[in-house]
Amino acid sequence: MTNQIPNIIIGRLPLYLRALIRLEKDGYTYASSRELGRMLDISAAQIRKDLSHFGELGKRGKGYEIDFLICKLNEILHTDNVWKIIVLGAGDLGSGLARYKGFVNRGFQVSAIFDVDPDKIGKMIGDLQVKDIKDLAVYVKENQIQIAILAIPAEFSQNIIDELVSAGITAILNYAPIYLKAPDGVRIEHIDPSVHLQKLSYFLK
Amino acid sequence: MTNQIPNIIIGRLPLYLRALIRLEKDGYTYASSRELGRMLDISAAQIRKDLSHFGELGKRGKGYEIDFLICKLNEILHTDNVWKIIVLGAGDLGSGLARYKGFVNRGFQVSAIFDVDPDKIGKMIGDLQVKDIKDLAVYVKENQIQIAILAIPAEFSQNIIDELVSAGITAILNYAPIYLKAPDGVRIEHIDPSVHLQKLSYFLK
Repeated sequence: MTNQIPNIIIGRLPLYLRALIRLEKDGYTYASSRELGRMLDISAAQIRKDLSHFGELGKRGKGYEIDFLICKLNEILHTDNVWKIIVLGAGDLGSGLARYKGFVNRGFQVSAIFDVDPDKIGKMIGDLQVKDIKDLAVYVKENQIQIAILAIPAEFSQNIIDELVSAGITAILNYAPIYLKAPDGVRIEHIDPSVHLQKLSYFLK
Repeated sequence: MTNQIPNIIIGRLPLYLRALIRLEKDGYTYASSRELGRMLDISAAQIRKDLSHFGELGKRGKGYEIDFLICKLNEILHTDNVWKIIVLGAGDLGSGLARYKGFVNRGFQVSAIFDVDPDKIGKMIGDLQVKDIKDLAVYVKENQIQIAILAIPAEFSQNIIDELVSAGITAILNYAPIYLKAPDGVRIEHIDPSVHLQKLSYFLK
């Protein structure tokens, strides 16, 4: 059944989860769809409709119990466990991601970082020692890694995808400024700061 | 009139623009809402409805003329000119952003990068020399900068916002894993890789 839920709804669930975590930190117990809507610039009706796909999650008159909904959303998004992920590319961006503190309690942990550059291989980045990309396939298989972050130059990104996929990677988060074609059964998300900047420039004169 | 358009629609326009640029590069002249919808996982009806807020942009039976719609969207998003933007923080992430090639032809150009660290100030990152954050206010005013990217540790991010705003910044793209409160008249967008990873992990087992 859940396979039928449109991607656009799935894409909003992590935003709901993030807003709920913020409310929980601020000491709230219940959240109404109206409050969530105000935080997220999404209509309350839309939020109620989105969440109704996953059962009766709210209580009439009280709203959503924050703890419960966080738990439920983590279950739905499969972040009730921690996914080990790998970073490809130990340049500026990859190093930043290997040290990034924003994965804690969100369901992800960078477990290895890879590069092709002999000057970078063996170097420590935070707690991680940069590995040779030659060892990628073995590492991915042994550690049953499914998610990779691409932080390599755009011109090399498409080529590495086949290698990643044949090693067992099925989900890719791409930071390079290039649109990558995903082979069957593989999903790719893009981090594109220009898209965010354009949402800001709309409001500027 | 355009002020009335819901943020959620504004947020989709950069995605339409990016898809159109991709189609144009691939040699297409016209795009239907159905094709765009397939590329973006958004329904064709939604796309037509979103774009209809800005006039009659498509031709019945032919779809949208790609060149024209790119031009129109750039006009709407105010990216028909190049915005000079600044990066705060010359660590891994800030350095990566200063060298990032994905702003070209998207309406933005990093014109300066700032840090507090004496070891980083004066260092070259690509074509840019890291400036002392003390010179921020003067630089922002002289160059009429309105947009800043924050790539500094989370614990310093909220504090720097007042400084940025009093210098004249009204739009902020934040890379730090922290929710920042925007003062009146200031907009903040967050780059949050965990949100994208959760969209991916939903589909994993």
